[in-house]
Formats: sequence, structure tokens, C-alpha cells
Amino acid sequence: MQIKKLCIIGVGLIGGSLALSLKKSGSVGTIVGTGRNQENLNDALELNIIDHATQDVTEAVADADVIVLSVPVGATESVCRQIKNSISDGAILTDVGSTKTSVLKQIERCFGQIPPWFVPGHPIAGTENSGARAAFADLFNNRRVVLTPLKNTDPDAVKTIRAMWEVTGAEVEMLDPQLHDEVLAHCSHLPHVLAFALVDYLAADSKSEAIFRFAAGGFEDFTRIAASDPQMWSDICLGNREAILQSLDGYQAKLDELRQLLLQGEAEELTSLFRRAKTTRDSLRE
Amino acid sequence: MQIKKLCIIGVGLIGGSLALSLKKSGSVGTIVGTGRNQENLNDALELNIIDHATQDVTEAVADADVIVLSVPVGATESVCRQIKNSISDGAILTDVGSTKTSVLKQIERCFGQIPPWFVPGHPIAGTENSGARAAFADLFNNRRVVLTPLKNTDPDAVKTIRAMWEVTGAEVEMLDPQLHDEVLAHCSHLPHVLAFALVDYLAADSKSEAIFRFAAGGFEDFTRIAASDPQMWSDICLGNREAILQSLDGYQAKLDELRQLLLQGEAEELTSLFRRAKTTRDSLRE
Repeated sequence: MQIKKLCIIGVGLIGGSLALSLKKSGSVGTIVGTGRNQENLNDALELNIIDHATQDVTEAVADADVIVLSVPVGATESVCRQIKNSISDGAILTDVGSTKTSVLKQIERCFGQIPPWFVPGHPIAGTENSGARAAFADLFNNRRVVLTPLKNTDPDAVKTIRAMWEVTGAEVEMLDPQLHDEVLAHCSHLPHVLAFALVDYLAADSKSEAIFRFAAGGFEDFTRIAASDPQMWSDICLGNREAILQSLDGYQAKLDELRQLLLQGEAEELTSLFRRAKTTRDSLRE
Repeated sequence: MQIKKLCIIGVGLIGGSLALSLKKSGSVGTIVGTGRNQENLNDALELNIIDHATQDVTEAVADADVIVLSVPVGATESVCRQIKNSISDGAILTDVGSTKTSVLKQIERCFGQIPPWFVPGHPIAGTENSGARAAFADLFNNRRVVLTPLKNTDPDAVKTIRAMWEVTGAEVEMLDPQLHDEVLAHCSHLPHVLAFALVDYLAADSKSEAIFRFAAGGFEDFTRIAASDPQMWSDICLGNREAILQSLDGYQAKLDELRQLLLQGEAEELTSLFRRAKTTRDSLRE
């Protein structure tokens, strides 16, 4: 797999890490980065994440073989409208959005249909940090990348994007876009919502100073994802609203159940619930 | 601070780590460990955590200067009834329970009053692992230990227990027992309940296999505490039931608020909530 010119729209944690990894492996000729934040572009240049930087997104995509959309999912349509007429023939457009059906809807609205050269993708990796300075080449190593191609997606375009991610050390899997969104609502979007909610709840408590002072390692792990980018997560929540609401409803029902056990002092059932959870958690790889 | 004979009742992660740390610093003569699990006691002997092991708790406490109760909080009363008549004159009894008012109630039921030589304590440290094999000498280093002495608690006994914990590298603070329980309900007990509930909820989903397969680092951090000891946590939940129920109610109200924002597509307010949480989380030390 060799990409002559790669364009990264949004050189943040994900876009920047992809650029670093592809550079490291020598599988890309030139990388041009674009985005609205000049300071971040300067960081990306300084850190050798990209070779060229421009705030002019139409200039950035010109002649690119592969264009990676790495912006908050809610910005997909507006960015695509800007680049629509500058994408070269034969170029492949892909994205890294955490929601897939909402991205597909926006792509369809912009292009009238889903172009066969658009490959929807989602690298399931990240940290709570944002921006080019947070990027590192190993981010995707041993992580999963999901591609959700449609029936009319060009198989060669899928092959190229799959190969691009495999270069980063990721394991690539194909999923139906709807199934992707349901699964991610449960294992990623819901936990983020719960962590944001917990920190916001505790911060408003009259004893918040003491609460945070006596918080230990468990709390730190539990709330780490509440330091994630607010704009990005608001976009994800609205982009995958129905699946997240469904997931949240189920979780709230489980909390109600647990609340009842606690209220009624059902020691055995409470222990059973905790034991089931522990058994499941222990069985997951770290 | 020098302890001639230390007795640890329950040589698990906490009791074992305390023993290791005190041994390392040379501030203890002999350590005798006791508990119901002979295999765990054998582990503790083999790992040089304790010098002597016995399943006979009355024998274990005889002649001990300091007795550390390190059992699930719900077992406090029954263990104290067993040792009641074997505690030496001048000995200090302390505990490491994550709830304080319920421990004090049990102590009072057992002894008729809270003895001046009982120093209620809670080292705010731990991992999701249990048993002597999980113990390590540095567990309390730079962590907080809360003591919740009462008006009639012997100041010299408090001084000794404070010094004992300071040897481990912990920072010791005094708190009112009720305040301790409220604060810990928010920063520790609630997050554990939420993590157990999430894993139990997702495990029952028809797509659980895919959900756990696509879970990434954020999920792993968020749910790590769901691997904690079920019996211990059931005890904590019931021992601090009222404070936890109150904390859970407040959290559920916050989830309802967030659910409404999501349902109504309130992008700006959702972003604000996430931003507030991020600002708070960023301000906490790791």
C-alpha cells in the first residue's frame, strides 16, 4: 500500500496519529494537513506530523489520492460541501467518525448519494487528550478499526483503506453501519455520557471540594473519559442520539433495579449482581 | 513508632499491604495474620507478609499491641464478638473499613459502647484485586488515610495509629464519621455501583459479544472497578446505604437532565455540560 498524497482534514489526536504512523512506515509520499486552527496546524508542522499545512481546505484536497475526514462528526456535511468540487478523479474519501449512520446521511445530503469512493471508517482508539500535540504513532497498534462500506462502495477503495489501517497495526473489521452505531452506543458513547454526568453532578455538590479531595485511583480511572473533547462528544451524542437514548434507558432501568436491592437490603442479590459483573469484567482482555 | 506485636485480621490487599509496608520500615516486631481462608494465609506466609498464621482468631489477638480489623465491613460485629475477651489490656483496635458509621454501630453493639482504644480508620487506597497475593508495600504511599475518632477515643491510641499509617507514606486526616460516609458515598461507593451496573447491564444484552469486542481503552478504565470484590462491595453498599441511595438519586436526576438535552437535541447545553465536566476533571490531580 502506497499513498502518493494524503490529505488529513483535522490534524488532531486521530488524524495526527494516523499521519505519524503512515510516515513512520514509509507508506505515504506527502501529507498535507488542513483545519481551522492555525496554531494546531503549526504544532503539527513542528512535530513533523504533516509536510504541508493550509487553512484552505479546497487547496488541501487537490491532487490528494486519499482524503481523511477527521473532524467532529457534526461537521461532516459542511466540510464535504467545501471540498466537493476539488476532489480529484480517482481519489478516495474516508472518515474516522465515531458514529456511522449520521455520517452517511450527511454524505448523502452533500453528494446526492453515497459516492462509491467514500469508505466510512471508525478507528476504535483514542485517549482523553485532543489536538496534534496528543498524537502518537502507536495509537492504533493492536486496536480495532471498523469499516462500514455499503453495497455500492468500490471494493478497491475499501481494499486501500483497509491496507492503510493495517499499516498502523490495527485489526480491520467490517460491520453494518447500524450495528456499528448500536454497539458503540453501548460500549463507548454511554460510558462517556455517564462519566461526564458524574463529574458534573459531583462538581455541583456543596461538599465537592472534599469529594474530589478524597477521590482515589478508582475514581480517577472511572472519570478519565470525562476529560474528552466536549464538542466532539456533543456531536457524537446527537449523531447517534437514538441508539444512545436506548442504551441510556436500559442502563437507567438497571440502576432502578439496583436501587431497589439496596433499598430493601437484599444482600444476596446485590452480591450476585456484583459477582456477575466481576466475572464478566475479569473475562475481558485488557 | 514501634509495634511489638501486630495482629492483622484478614490478610487481603489492604491488611497485607499494611503488613508489608510496616515490615519494610522495620517498625514492627512480629506480625500474626488470621483469617478464615487457610490458602490465603499460606500465601501470606510464603510471601513473607506475616510471620505467623492461625485460623484461631482469639489466639491471634492475644498479646497483640495493635489489632487491625481488615475484613468486609459487615463482618465487624461477629469478628469482634469472637475476640472481645482475648484483647490485651492496653491494646489498640483499629479498622480499615470503607464505611464508618456502620462500623461504629457494630462496635457499639459488641462492646456496649465504643471503647476508647478503638480507632476507626479508612485508608483510601486499593486496586480491583483481592487477597494476600494482591498486596504490595507501596499501596498507601501518597494516598490518604482517614481516621474518625470520637470524643472519648484515647488521644494516644489515635497518635499511634496515625504514626502507623504515616510510616506507609500515607497522609492522615481526621474527619467526622458521618461526613466521611457522605463524601465516600459520592467519590467511591457511587462510582463502584455505577460500574458494576454497567457491566451487568451490557452482559445481558443480546449483542454483548460484539459490545465487549469493540470496547476500547475508555471502557476498560471506566469499568476496571467492576472487578472489585463482590462481597466487600455488597457490605459497603449496605453499610452506607442511606448515603449511597441519596448519592444515586442525585445522579439519576442528573442523567434525566442529560437525557432531556439529548432527546431535545440541545447541542449547546449538552456541550456546556460536557465542557463543565471536562474543566472539573482536568483540574483534579492524577
